[in-house]
Amino acid sequence: MLKQSQMLIPTLREVPADAEIASHKLLLRAGMARQLASGIYTYLPLALRTLHKIQAIVREEMNKAGAQELLMPAMQPAELWHQTGRWDVYGPELVRLRDRHDRSFALGPTHEEVITSLVRDEINSYKKLPINLYQIQTKFRDEVRPRFGLIRCREFIMKDAYSFDTTQEGLDRNFQAMYDAYTNIFTRVGLNFRAVEADAGAIGGKGTYEFMALCEIGEDTIAYSEEGDYAANLEKAEVVYKPSEKPAVEAPAREKVHTPGIKTIDQLVEFLNVEAKQIIKSLIYRVDDKLVMVLVRGDHELNEVKLKNLYDATTVGLASEAEIVSVTGAPAGFVGPVGIDGEKVEIIADNYVQDVYDGIVGANETDYHLAHVVPGRDFAVSRFADLRNITEGDQCPRTGGAIKFARGVEVGHVFKLGTKYSQAMGATYLDENGRSQPMIMGCYGIGVSRTIAAVIEQNNDENGIIWPVAVAPFHVHVIPVNVKVEEQRQISEQISEALQKAGVEVLFDDRPERAGVKFKDADLIGLPLRITVSDKAAQEGTVEVRVRKTGETVNVKVADLVSEVKTMLARVDHTGAALFGNE
Amino acid sequence: MLKQSQMLIPTLREVPADAEIASHKLLLRAGMARQLASGIYTYLPLALRTLHKIQAIVREEMNKAGAQELLMPAMQPAELWHQTGRWDVYGPELVRLRDRHDRSFALGPTHEEVITSLVRDEINSYKKLPINLYQIQTKFRDEVRPRFGLIRCREFIMKDAYSFDTTQEGLDRNFQAMYDAYTNIFTRVGLNFRAVEADAGAIGGKGTYEFMALCEIGEDTIAYSEEGDYAANLEKAEVVYKPSEKPAVEAPAREKVHTPGIKTIDQLVEFLNVEAKQIIKSLIYRVDDKLVMVLVRGDHELNEVKLKNLYDATTVGLASEAEIVSVTGAPAGFVGPVGIDGEKVEIIADNYVQDVYDGIVGANETDYHLAHVVPGRDFAVSRFADLRNITEGDQCPRTGGAIKFARGVEVGHVFKLGTKYSQAMGATYLDENGRSQPMIMGCYGIGVSRTIAAVIEQNNDENGIIWPVAVAPFHVHVIPVNVKVEEQRQISEQISEALQKAGVEVLFDDRPERAGVKFKDADLIGLPLRITVSDKAAQEGTVEVRVRKTGETVNVKVADLVSEVKTMLARVDHTGAALFGNE
Repeated sequence: MLKQSQMLIPTLREVPADAEIASHKLLLRAGMARQLASGIYTYLPLALRTLHKIQAIVREEMNKAGAQELLMPAMQPAELWHQTGRWDVYGPELVRLRDRHDRSFALGPTHEEVITSLVRDEINSYKKLPINLYQIQTKFRDEVRPRFGLIRCREFIMKDAYSFDTTQEGLDRNFQAMYDAYTNIFTRVGLNFRAVEADAGAIGGKGTYEFMALCEIGEDTIAYSEEGDYAANLEKAEVVYKPSEKPAVEAPAREKVHTPGIKTIDQLVEFLNVEAKQIIKSLIYRVDDKLVMVLVRGDHELNEVKLKNLYDATTVGLASEAEIVSVTGAPAGFVGPVGIDGEKVEIIADNYVQDVYDGIVGANETDYHLAHVVPGRDFAVSRFADLRNITEGDQCPRTGGAIKFARGVEVGHVFKLGTKYSQAMGATYLDENGRSQPMIMGCYGIGVSRTIAAVIEQNNDENGIIWPVAVAPFHVHVIPVNVKVEEQRQISEQISEALQKAGVEVLFDDRPERAGVKFKDADLIGLPLRITVSDKAAQEGTVEVRVRKTGETVNVKVADLVSEVKTMLARVDHTGAALFGNE
Repeated sequence: MLKQSQMLIPTLREVPADAEIASHKLLLRAGMARQLASGIYTYLPLALRTLHKIQAIVREEMNKAGAQELLMPAMQPAELWHQTGRWDVYGPELVRLRDRHDRSFALGPTHEEVITSLVRDEINSYKKLPINLYQIQTKFRDEVRPRFGLIRCREFIMKDAYSFDTTQEGLDRNFQAMYDAYTNIFTRVGLNFRAVEADAGAIGGKGTYEFMALCEIGEDTIAYSEEGDYAANLEKAEVVYKPSEKPAVEAPAREKVHTPGIKTIDQLVEFLNVEAKQIIKSLIYRVDDKLVMVLVRGDHELNEVKLKNLYDATTVGLASEAEIVSVTGAPAGFVGPVGIDGEKVEIIADNYVQDVYDGIVGANETDYHLAHVVPGRDFAVSRFADLRNITEGDQCPRTGGAIKFARGVEVGHVFKLGTKYSQAMGATYLDENGRSQPMIMGCYGIGVSRTIAAVIEQNNDENGIIWPVAVAPFHVHVIPVNVKVEEQRQISEQISEALQKAGVEVLFDDRPERAGVKFKDADLIGLPLRITVSDKAAQEGTVEVRVRKTGETVNVKVADLVSEVKTMLARVDHTGAALFGNE
């Protein structure tokens, strides 16, 4: 039992001005965290208790999955980052410093370099593999715009794991073990989450999932299907192409239309009185070092990640105005595929451009468009591919059901690295035949401190936080209506001690405050159960137990309190896991 | 139970070249730690288990003493350090960096600034005090010469606590509570330590103890008495002055002696055939901005800390050659108090200079000394005081017993800060009368990662580490003589599981290595008990249990093993604390 009068829980009545989202506001208002500098926070006692509970869950599941915990330093010599080339690539997000001897260090935003050099130096035989090493440790990332409290910080706590295998199948097994462990972790923590297929990007390797906590304030869009468990990032979500029926009558011959100053899809729709899906957008992109024309239907958005992957490119970006003119002779807004030499500039198109049987394109001439244009008839496309963002209502690639959108905050990430780091740093092993082979790696991260914020984001109401039992700072808040009434105080202490002895964690509000103030603070802090001790406790031998989540109250005999509280906590808790005697 | 084949425990046969001391060598050889950069280490799985156990003990005792845990950031804005003036004072040990917006930060070597600003902002009434806040966190200190493995690092783990009180008595109570908690912590951890009186130094405040783990390689000298519990740092240890008897016959008149090129005490002893204690050393010091002559007997060492405290000075240091000549007219080596104008240069002396009844001093003339000099008769001393280092055989100031010396490594420090930081940073509270008062602070540190090294330093032999039970990575090492013999393997697994179920932590060496290799590794890793499973296990139903500390072995029936192992662990353990079911 801890006495609230002796704890640092500086609750606030006012909503802090700079806090935009619920979890940020509530972490400050419930006296759990304080900002020291932009994106840099102190965890006050209540938040630290929750942090420790999350860490304990992470450790249990990681150990169960066969991973081993170690602890690497925050200060990482620049030489390691030069070996992988990331010293130059990482940019200003990497916190850099020099020591007294003018040697350069990074403050680790991640530990691929350190772990790979460790395993390279210590393991050289297939006999010692596979291995999966993890740590729970403070990371540093100098974000351009830290925001949202513990969601996007410059100093934060991560669990990062790295697996080393001899075969792709081994990596697949470790990857699956981590996927399963993460599923267990986020379930136990009490999050509503989805494992979302994500794009592997330039970092290499195939197979990557982001674990997204679903919430409005998420910066990422998730496409999912309510039938089955398909979920993918917008950038990754595959669009199934189902051709629409070809109309019986072919479009008339193409026709040049005067469209003075009409450049955007919206303007064209209004000016020509057509639907957006009749228009074909023609975009000139620079893909690595060559220019490409990409066609997308007017009602669709180009997906640059898909474009990049189609070409297996390192960089993609819109061409400059000068480049556009050099290719088409016209400025952006009037560009089109008709008359473009496909030998000089490849013309590619999203699958759905095939569905435009009577379309409008730019005429490659200022203030003119072409109407009644038909792909194949009026211009050639070298390749059709899935190049657009999925939209709500599109077909799920797995189930065929309708796609919906949700917003999410990334709390975990599992990633197949392959041999990118082991090759760059020479992390090889001798196989059964004495041949040197690069180790095959995976990496697996959990935003531990961010998870606190995600849990709060999903579990709150207008009065405060509503903690899931498994990660609540305490299980029960014991509040005497008037602590100066000796009997109330005594009974409060007695039940607090009895509960604590039974493994129930109690915060005892022994402050000489008015009952209303204490109840408001209790709602704000949001422990699963509140026990109110009034004069009834002495007179009738009962106390009131209130469930924070549902607001239901029940009068319980003091004699039955311990068993009743345990039953109620088990009922409130979403996981059903054992709660007591493990701490 | 963890299987050794799957753990990263890279033991080494060779002694690493750069490791000078036992704990450093053994941390490397037992596969517990690896250096990433000078003074920066990765804790491998075995060391991390010990680290976690030490942390758990620290937490338990800190919580029991009424302290509350929180967690502050490593990155600290320079502005806070400017408020206390330490940004300029701290020097190159402070790791500094700039963020992407060119704002300056320190990586915290300590957290007085951060905690004081937090408490200043959150607490403003006497009603919320006292409070004692602590964290277990990674610290950064850019040491000139990192060495000795985990003893002196640039990145290391500390427990640091800060108390805030309204009265000096409150501070005294918090200080005593921390003193007691530290005594419990280091006892439970298994260290042979002393709480040593230390000098409070310029940081201000009175009352400071260092908790020193006694070991040969310690960089600090501790003066202690075997009678009673007196112990003090050399710089702090008080020398009791007991005058010797005055001889019946007074010294003859002083006499100038030609001593060509004879400058040091040793040279004088030999050249004049006298004892060192007959010589009075005369040292010219610069104390803040004035010059002082300090006299100490030839067989004693001046203690600069005592000199500094006598004058309540900020800096003391030997005067330059030019300053010496300006005061005495002679170079160092021939300086003396006779004929010096005490109005211009104060002459002070250690108490024991009074015991020199027929002495030798410099003549303030190159190549000459004066013999038969008597203080008081031949020169005046403005003050006698305790100004020298204590020596072995001196009298203990408490018990009167003989002082002995020992070497120690500082593992903890309790310190009364007073109002130094609260005044500098405006951490005030309103007292009962509504008056604003500065909070009275204490700070309390434990070198958590250094403690690992100190424990090893005190607990090892030529074969490896000898872990105290309370902080051993595992309790028991189970080793089948030949893991390929199916029965041995099965029995090893069965007993490992049975032990684990009973709360005994088991490392199971399932590697297909020769028995000799496994035994050598077991000694190196140093778990308290080793259980060897040979063919006897199947034939006779017995296994051999060996105590790492004493080398004794006993054959135990497999059926009795769990209870026998528990009994033996309780016997081996020095603390007698409950070992099982707490983890």
